[in-house]
Amino acid sequence: MTLPTSTQNQSLIIGLKQRREKLAKLINYPVILWSGSPARRNFSANKLPFRASSHFLYFAGIPLTNAVIRLQGGKLELFLDNPPPEATLWHGTTPTREEIGAIIGANQVYPLAELSGKTAGAATIAVQDLATYQQQSQLLNRPISLSHQTTSIDLELAQALVKLRSHHDDLALAELRQAAAVSVAAHKAGMQATKNATTEAEIRGAMEGVIIAHNMTCAYNSIVTVQGEVLHNESYHHQLHPGDLLLADVGAETPNGWAADITRTWAVSGKFSPSQKAIYEIILQAHDDCIAKVKPGVEYQDLHLLAAEIIAAGLADLGILEGNPQDLVAMDAHALFFPHGVGHLLGLDVHDMEDLGDVAGYTAGRSRSDRFGLGYLRLNRPLESGMLVTIEPGFYQVPAILNDPNFRAKYQNVINWERLAEFKDVRGIRIEDDVLVTDSGAEVLTASLPTKIEELVVMSNE
Amino acid sequence: MTLPTSTQNQSLIIGLKQRREKLAKLINYPVILWSGSPARRNFSANKLPFRASSHFLYFAGIPLTNAVIRLQGGKLELFLDNPPPEATLWHGTTPTREEIGAIIGANQVYPLAELSGKTAGAATIAVQDLATYQQQSQLLNRPISLSHQTTSIDLELAQALVKLRSHHDDLALAELRQAAAVSVAAHKAGMQATKNATTEAEIRGAMEGVIIAHNMTCAYNSIVTVQGEVLHNESYHHQLHPGDLLLADVGAETPNGWAADITRTWAVSGKFSPSQKAIYEIILQAHDDCIAKVKPGVEYQDLHLLAAEIIAAGLADLGILEGNPQDLVAMDAHALFFPHGVGHLLGLDVHDMEDLGDVAGYTAGRSRSDRFGLGYLRLNRPLESGMLVTIEPGFYQVPAILNDPNFRAKYQNVINWERLAEFKDVRGIRIEDDVLVTDSGAEVLTASLPTKIEELVVMSNE
Repeated sequence: MTLPTSTQNQSLIIGLKQRREKLAKLINYPVILWSGSPARRNFSANKLPFRASSHFLYFAGIPLTNAVIRLQGGKLELFLDNPPPEATLWHGTTPTREEIGAIIGANQVYPLAELSGKTAGAATIAVQDLATYQQQSQLLNRPISLSHQTTSIDLELAQALVKLRSHHDDLALAELRQAAAVSVAAHKAGMQATKNATTEAEIRGAMEGVIIAHNMTCAYNSIVTVQGEVLHNESYHHQLHPGDLLLADVGAETPNGWAADITRTWAVSGKFSPSQKAIYEIILQAHDDCIAKVKPGVEYQDLHLLAAEIIAAGLADLGILEGNPQDLVAMDAHALFFPHGVGHLLGLDVHDMEDLGDVAGYTAGRSRSDRFGLGYLRLNRPLESGMLVTIEPGFYQVPAILNDPNFRAKYQNVINWERLAEFKDVRGIRIEDDVLVTDSGAEVLTASLPTKIEELVVMSNE
Repeated sequence: MTLPTSTQNQSLIIGLKQRREKLAKLINYPVILWSGSPARRNFSANKLPFRASSHFLYFAGIPLTNAVIRLQGGKLELFLDNPPPEATLWHGTTPTREEIGAIIGANQVYPLAELSGKTAGAATIAVQDLATYQQQSQLLNRPISLSHQTTSIDLELAQALVKLRSHHDDLALAELRQAAAVSVAAHKAGMQATKNATTEAEIRGAMEGVIIAHNMTCAYNSIVTVQGEVLHNESYHHQLHPGDLLLADVGAETPNGWAADITRTWAVSGKFSPSQKAIYEIILQAHDDCIAKVKPGVEYQDLHLLAAEIIAAGLADLGILEGNPQDLVAMDAHALFFPHGVGHLLGLDVHDMEDLGDVAGYTAGRSRSDRFGLGYLRLNRPLESGMLVTIEPGFYQVPAILNDPNFRAKYQNVINWERLAEFKDVRGIRIEDDVLVTDSGAEVLTASLPTKIEELVVMSNE
């Protein structure tokens, strides 16, 4: 664990205390949150990379393992066992429970065994790892619903957490800016590595190498692919060919758990073909126009629909779609090529608070649409100052969609298949940035990474 | 998943069949092995990196997820669910159960639900993830002991697995050589990155970047540290200073799960100080002499004791220890500076089959010594042709040992503390290679990575 320096530490203590006090205004019963514990890589001494649970991290501030915090009335109690004395041989001197308590401003510290006497009436959120989940249930002495199905006081807690975590405080913003800056550097390294790379994996190595070099981890499994139409592609073995576009969706996470999420699409050869350029410009316009509209009060779904309309209009201009843009969007024709939502909340999680189902993403009373062109939208709330969202329009030729007989029948009069065939070297394009909603509009945390074709071309030829 | 090409595929099918046939000669009841399933990174769509269980991988050959195999009489039945149709949108076309069955030479394939009718009388080995472990118990309808505490038919299976997995076949060796080659490249990149690096993390980024660029993963959490005396150091935030030694213990794992494990120690400035050079040469001699002795029939513990004696002799020559080397080793004085074993088995796991406790590492009837200088030895068997072991002597100034009042009292007459103080810039040195036992002696799979100071100096100044 990297311990904070003393100035950082004062900000951490103050920031965490403010979070607890805000929570105490919303919840008057105790809240107990578990960090979780690392999974094993086939034998117990070989641990898989560990990520503490996000709700825990929000109040504990630093990535503790096998730790529990109890919050009540603005106070923090930390439950953590000291490492056994023989651990110093293998792991060196590690801070004691008391030292860690001091770092995060705990009001009391206890060994884990003392937790069992202090769980009455407490709310919690289920963590993802089963071993810890079973402990939660046992220690609270009641069944705990999964985190996307919370009920009663756990649901109230979930709603309170959403209120807090939706608006990033200074502590969070400092971390999010770091994650964004390192992710920008990783993408630049990926572009610069392209000229001499022969496989997707080599680009990925260059990008993730930068993240590791900054002592960060990836916030999610990277997508680095010449098959951009596979939306969650996680294979990296394809050869790069001169006519390919490379889509890279890679984001760093700070040691304390805060994420960035950036996508860029660039040409393997350094040069976009006319068909690639034509589609790219449409997606870039959707990206830029959505970001220009970001401000408090704007409905995020309206940004999604704006992107959809710009894409439909652009494809109509190119002769790929036929009809007027509003009609095309109303019939979800945009979703043939842009089947996902325009973005999501971003914070400790890359899809922030998605463990709570749609409690964070959807205003109370709203639920997922069953429309093909809206159902994958992860965020449907009016924007508020302090929210961080991604804006990530895209264009994809997904065989599972375009070859689907039902879609082909439904949209037979609005797609020009012959014209579309002239764009077959555009498999997938996405442009994604991290946008902070501010009182005065928007601040793009990832703005230092180019989006314009001319600049991408320069960078990938450097 | 990267699918094998057709030539690779024939070798895979033949190699896996041979493994099953060998197993059938040792075990006449069914064997059921689970791959396990990925853990989640705080919400269900964000998966942590997954590693299938090693015993499963040995017979399934490729890294399947949520899969089960049943082996009996040399036959393989694969139980695996096809992805739901909507998965093609997000994940593209993935091979069907039948296609995967063909790739690995399965005799039959079934959906997972059919497993429950085919579990009678089967042996298994518990996997590490609790969710899968609970399924194992439920489906076999009996309690399953943890993998290091197997009993009855599960213990017999463990012993059979050790017989097979201790001797690497051609399929395994092809993978192990790839892992070794990429790990060598990673270490070279680390050395070359040193001149311009300012933190441990930057060296790590350069090294792991190479592993990722080859579409491999790290076989274990890398150690890249200027505090080499912390044996399992997993922090990377320290600044590099010109007088520091950098210890890097980094190994790649192939996509099918086979590991390498290499340690090198080099000078941050490119130049070893006289004190660093003096100790390094002792460790290198222990390393070289142990490797020279590797051949079938040699007791691995004798190699450990040989390393201990060379280190004791070298430290006596330098005036750090006082006494004759045999006596020093007999009283475990070497372990003050070399507290771990000289190495371990290597294969699918970096400590191969350590999930089975000491069943693989210790010949039946042998158990861990309670001697300080032997108790951490992970391997105590006569070497046999086809075994892959690490040879990794080291020297460390571990405060938890050297400041321990009991040790200081016990060894007061054999340590010259004033002389030792002249070596305070030698915090930790380890030199580790992967050595295959062959009929004619030894083949060092990692031999292309330099160990000699002159060569390390050249490489870290390139």
